[in-house]
Amino acid sequence: MKTYFDCIPCFIRQALDSARLITDDENIHEEIIISAMKMAVDMDLRKSPPEMAKKIHRLIRQLTGIDDPYKEIKASFNAFAMQMYPKAKKYIEESVDKIEAAVKFAIAGNIIDFGVNAGLKNHHVRDAIDKSLETPIEPKALQRFKDAVARAENILYLGDNAGEIVFDKLLIEQLPTEKITFAVRGKPIINDITMEDAEFVSMTDLVPVIDNGDDAPGTILEDCSQQFQEKFTDADLIIAKGQGNYETLSEVDKNIFFILKAKCEIIAQHLGCEVGSMILKENF
Amino acid sequence: MKTYFDCIPCFIRQALDSARLITDDENIHEEIIISAMKMAVDMDLRKSPPEMAKKIHRLIRQLTGIDDPYKEIKASFNAFAMQMYPKAKKYIEESVDKIEAAVKFAIAGNIIDFGVNAGLKNHHVRDAIDKSLETPIEPKALQRFKDAVARAENILYLGDNAGEIVFDKLLIEQLPTEKITFAVRGKPIINDITMEDAEFVSMTDLVPVIDNGDDAPGTILEDCSQQFQEKFTDADLIIAKGQGNYETLSEVDKNIFFILKAKCEIIAQHLGCEVGSMILKENF
Repeated sequence: MKTYFDCIPCFIRQALDSARLITDDENIHEEIIISAMKMAVDMDLRKSPPEMAKKIHRLIRQLTGIDDPYKEIKASFNAFAMQMYPKAKKYIEESVDKIEAAVKFAIAGNIIDFGVNAGLKNHHVRDAIDKSLETPIEPKALQRFKDAVARAENILYLGDNAGEIVFDKLLIEQLPTEKITFAVRGKPIINDITMEDAEFVSMTDLVPVIDNGDDAPGTILEDCSQQFQEKFTDADLIIAKGQGNYETLSEVDKNIFFILKAKCEIIAQHLGCEVGSMILKENF
Repeated sequence: MKTYFDCIPCFIRQALDSARLITDDENIHEEIIISAMKMAVDMDLRKSPPEMAKKIHRLIRQLTGIDDPYKEIKASFNAFAMQMYPKAKKYIEESVDKIEAAVKFAIAGNIIDFGVNAGLKNHHVRDAIDKSLETPIEPKALQRFKDAVARAENILYLGDNAGEIVFDKLLIEQLPTEKITFAVRGKPIINDITMEDAEFVSMTDLVPVIDNGDDAPGTILEDCSQQFQEKFTDADLIIAKGQGNYETLSEVDKNIFFILKAKCEIIAQHLGCEVGSMILKENF
């Protein structure tokens, strides 16, 4: 997906959110917001939004010397989601359609996105789960997803955010784990998961976990490590979580199922749905 | 009020909204958004938000050659509010406290602000009125407002937006009109009122109407005409409608009552209230 003009004010707002997370120094806030605008002036709109976000967040790290501004937030949402895990697991196990229930949790978990909402609180996650569980998944899409998983021999599951990864684990537990490899980002970017998060929530005990070698909040294939690119090529099914993975992979010619919550107007328009919709959708 | 960093992404979004109103040509959208960012990079944050908005909208007019992109929207909201006038007038006349009822309509009318929400529809105005009528005005503030009006000899009422002006008329009709002069902006800016709107809704038949000689979406005194500045100095009470007038006059040493709906997080923080609050508040 290309970058829309509407994404530009959103990038600037996101840069400011990050700046405030790192320091109370308003001079640094100003430096970051001005630098982000200068960068936006020269940006190539044919690239996807995560491409620009990656550049802005690299710049913020350079300007502040802080490598992982979202470290504490990530830890806190991982811990919060882990607390919810036993109840959610029980709910899924007691459901008539366990995969459907697990998909609902995986979509609800995608609310934990500090790129979209830097003021997110635990109760927003609880509300998203309650709402998600009440909303049916489109039966045909769900069946196609189940069929695709059954047919596939080699599945690459692209994770998204901290906290959310616990809900991904709940879904993966309902799938044939022997076929699945889970992927995290190569370096910290916003509240996206890295290997540390996968280890913290014991995803590493469930399936092999690789990192993609890059620091974009999405999957920009040409920037990923060769090892990741090979894994991507070898997989006969990709499960891609979240907006960033959708934005970077929606035009890639590959067997992909996207699982996400449509959290902004632009994504919703691109998907042809309302903001807040639960999406389980294959490529093309 | 100074400009906050949070206002910057909002300026960029506002420039894009205007661009889209003027043309479907994406090249012009890009030119406008890029130019707005270049301008924002160099802006002086000690100035108020309307100062920056004025510059951005001047630039948009230059780039497109269109003097009044909001002309149709203004006409449509004037007509819509005029349709509501008879019912609203009856409601006020039948109220125990007519001034309180009229203040509520005047605050509700401030929802018609295309700087804040370019997607505003008629039903939003109806909803705002319903909500406003249900919400009490702080009794002490209302009493101080009535006392200030009774004491004053020379009142200058600073209008704000098209459509909203009809609700200002309803309030002015409950006040001693012989003391009141109504002021409009000097030139088109966003959906703010000019003399044309005052004539269309017959404000000119009710009280003398002057224009302030400037094209800011607020009242930047030093940029206003000498005639307006003298009128401002001579007045012993200013009634200032809307966010733009609050942003530009909140630190002016003058007897001012602000009447507005707090429509963004920054204004709400500055006023110490929640977003959406109805504000009737004197200076200092």
